[in-house]
Amino acid sequence: MNHPTPLAELRKPLPEALLDALRAVFGERLSTTQAMREHHGRDESSYDPMPPDAVVFAQSTEEVAAAVKLCASHEVPIIPYGTGTSLEGHILALRGGVTIDLSQMNAVVAIHPQDLTATVQAGVTRKQLNAELRDTGLFFPIDPGADASLGGMAATRASGTNAVRYGTMRENTLMLTVVTADGRIIRTGSRAKKSSAGYDLTRVFVGSEGTLGIITEVTVRLYPQPEAISAAVCSFNTTADAVNAVIRTIQMGVPVARVEFLDENGVRSINAHDKLTLPEKPLLLFEFHGSDMGVAEQAQTVQEIAFEFNALGFEWATRPEDRSRLWQARHNAYFAMLQMRPGARAISTDCCVPISSLAECILDTQADCEHHGIIYSIIGHVGDGNFHVLLMVDPNDPEDVARAEGVNARMVGRALSMDGTCTGEHGVGLHKMDFLVQEHGEEAIDVMRTLKHALDPKNIMNPGKIIRW
Amino acid sequence: MNHPTPLAELRKPLPEALLDALRAVFGERLSTTQAMREHHGRDESSYDPMPPDAVVFAQSTEEVAAAVKLCASHEVPIIPYGTGTSLEGHILALRGGVTIDLSQMNAVVAIHPQDLTATVQAGVTRKQLNAELRDTGLFFPIDPGADASLGGMAATRASGTNAVRYGTMRENTLMLTVVTADGRIIRTGSRAKKSSAGYDLTRVFVGSEGTLGIITEVTVRLYPQPEAISAAVCSFNTTADAVNAVIRTIQMGVPVARVEFLDENGVRSINAHDKLTLPEKPLLLFEFHGSDMGVAEQAQTVQEIAFEFNALGFEWATRPEDRSRLWQARHNAYFAMLQMRPGARAISTDCCVPISSLAECILDTQADCEHHGIIYSIIGHVGDGNFHVLLMVDPNDPEDVARAEGVNARMVGRALSMDGTCTGEHGVGLHKMDFLVQEHGEEAIDVMRTLKHALDPKNIMNPGKIIRW
Repeated sequence: MNHPTPLAELRKPLPEALLDALRAVFGERLSTTQAMREHHGRDESSYDPMPPDAVVFAQSTEEVAAAVKLCASHEVPIIPYGTGTSLEGHILALRGGVTIDLSQMNAVVAIHPQDLTATVQAGVTRKQLNAELRDTGLFFPIDPGADASLGGMAATRASGTNAVRYGTMRENTLMLTVVTADGRIIRTGSRAKKSSAGYDLTRVFVGSEGTLGIITEVTVRLYPQPEAISAAVCSFNTTADAVNAVIRTIQMGVPVARVEFLDENGVRSINAHDKLTLPEKPLLLFEFHGSDMGVAEQAQTVQEIAFEFNALGFEWATRPEDRSRLWQARHNAYFAMLQMRPGARAISTDCCVPISSLAECILDTQADCEHHGIIYSIIGHVGDGNFHVLLMVDPNDPEDVARAEGVNARMVGRALSMDGTCTGEHGVGLHKMDFLVQEHGEEAIDVMRTLKHALDPKNIMNPGKIIRW
Repeated sequence: MNHPTPLAELRKPLPEALLDALRAVFGERLSTTQAMREHHGRDESSYDPMPPDAVVFAQSTEEVAAAVKLCASHEVPIIPYGTGTSLEGHILALRGGVTIDLSQMNAVVAIHPQDLTATVQAGVTRKQLNAELRDTGLFFPIDPGADASLGGMAATRASGTNAVRYGTMRENTLMLTVVTADGRIIRTGSRAKKSSAGYDLTRVFVGSEGTLGIITEVTVRLYPQPEAISAAVCSFNTTADAVNAVIRTIQMGVPVARVEFLDENGVRSINAHDKLTLPEKPLLLFEFHGSDMGVAEQAQTVQEIAFEFNALGFEWATRPEDRSRLWQARHNAYFAMLQMRPGARAISTDCCVPISSLAECILDTQADCEHHGIIYSIIGHVGDGNFHVLLMVDPNDPEDVARAEGVNARMVGRALSMDGTCTGEHGVGLHKMDFLVQEHGEEAIDVMRTLKHALDPKNIMNPGKIIRW
């Protein structure tokens, strides 16, 4: 459904010479089977698969560089692949080419607990890293829901539930190892917490979605595990009350670690999926990190704010297993929603607006969904002004799809008019290229294009994503 | 003293046609007097002045764009100028050209207190912004010491004393208005707190020191004024004890707002300059922000750590006037030190290392200074692993200068071997171009050069800074 022209005319069979050369490097770790290609031509977006012509499994930065050099010499597209959990078609092989699967680059290169840093290969997932950190008393906070690879998270500038307190991959990536479009290997920074040493190459590549180079190693910041953690759930009669409570919390500078919103449709879906009995009303999930005293103080403040906005209760989850169950349910919201309309696919939106406009943006979008009779739910990292509308559509009904895309487009227009962005954390991929132009304007897009042309003059790095050539 | 060749051969008189065209735009706000040119050819570095050929005072982004277009058509260098407080020769007119003084672009464009953001013209200084914010209950934390302009602070990726808690200009700049090298006006982002919308143009220009474009407006994050602030000073018998106390504080995740180190030379100089009576021993200055309870708790923890590392006392400064006096003295350290050796100039270094290496890096550098009989002091934003050695030299004694530069070069080598950076916050300018290559390696520098060539193909934007063409 709903895919752009796969540019079949630009799709040529891979040269035999390239395949032979790749086989010499990767041996059994090169695959051209249909099953393998299809697996790598699909993400969690609503797009139909677009398989690459071949897949190689890299085990080192040097192997990635070798693959890039070979593909560059044949001007064949290269697509990096981590866990395939992106939501905007990032890893679809629009023009064919070679997918470099980085999942076997899953070594934790170095943990420096005394410096609060870790360096990992791009294929290491966030859960793997946190498992390895368990004995150090430290943790890596960025949590986009999926157990994504750190390479992929850097490439999409991911964030998620903890970003309101700890920032996103933008703030938490100290440096990268990157293979450039001509196959050179560079290090983009140092392990110093701050630096004014020249152009910020780290942040040139963070969020570049594989279109400027391939991230093969990531050095991230770590944080001491908080002395105390507590969580609370809190229902409201109206979305406006729930969101306004969040806005007040942020404006008062309460350092909440997480604050998530689910509308009543979202609550209903996770109740069904995770056998919970939450009131089917707009819901906030809070998590507080700090000292025992600090957590108690934060919770007290937030509770007062919640009741000021007519909260129906404020229920604690201090036992780790209760907290895990709640957050797991929150993370399942996407899949839970899919079950609310069997056979449907979800179009996921991702606006982020300045916090004072959040309630208005959500309410207008809800009204638009209701007006068009769409099955939807809204979940959000509301502390950052970021929310997702999951629009459930029948992929075989073009009108249904068009209705949902209409809601999305109007919501993006609304967010941009509020000085917000079309994507808080999912990235642009294939799906938001037009929104990106709308957000930045032709002049700024042209500066982005200048960067792309300069760093990838043959247009072989994940071509056709983010901006048009 | 100590300046690179001013590239006199590249210095041509300004074409009369350009001067006429600039005069048509700027009228009386164009100056070619020697006094004005010399004023704009000097910063707070140890370099001799290198004046531009003309200075224009811009009052709008459109005027900046007009000046850039005119200079571009004549291939004449353009240098942006804020308050002239840079430390690495950033605003010296190495090849002549036109300096665009942005100090008259000093309007606060918009404050959105409910979103915790402010948009200002590039010439607004941090003190001016904070004065305008006073009634909102918010503040802008970045404090590099000098009352720098926000445009200049963004251009050098500045930080300073509060960065340990609030981050640097990298984390706190939401978006910029930039005039590109061909005179187009772009906006690099939105006011959303986070975004994955395409290449991170904001951070391409933050830290680019005027070499890729001219920043004309800056949108920054604001923070609620903390409910409580307290400060404390704490002396130690040894530098090692002081620095190790900081390392432990950071590793434990105590959210200190400021933690500054002064060695005994630094303390002696501010005692003399500010008529203080601090013990002439290695000193830490702390500031704590939070709730009454949170501040008390942080202070208690830090006090315990300090005594564990043999602190000689822990003295409170809770009255605002005492705090101001202490921080003013800290900010005066540079000028105080200048008075310790009349006629001398200061070479200021700016390493930043992963926190666990900080004590070793400082101690080895101290030993090196002592060994060479240099008059110096060390002050540092030690919570970030960042410190400055002020090396006092006789500008007319080449051997003296060479000795100091030797200390600097060895210290940078030491910091890089510890995975640190040659500049935590001052930037590269003229002074650290070789260090930058040493830090990043030729391949990464080449990627930076690719960006420069792509965004400034005529090499007219502050040419000769950061990287060699």
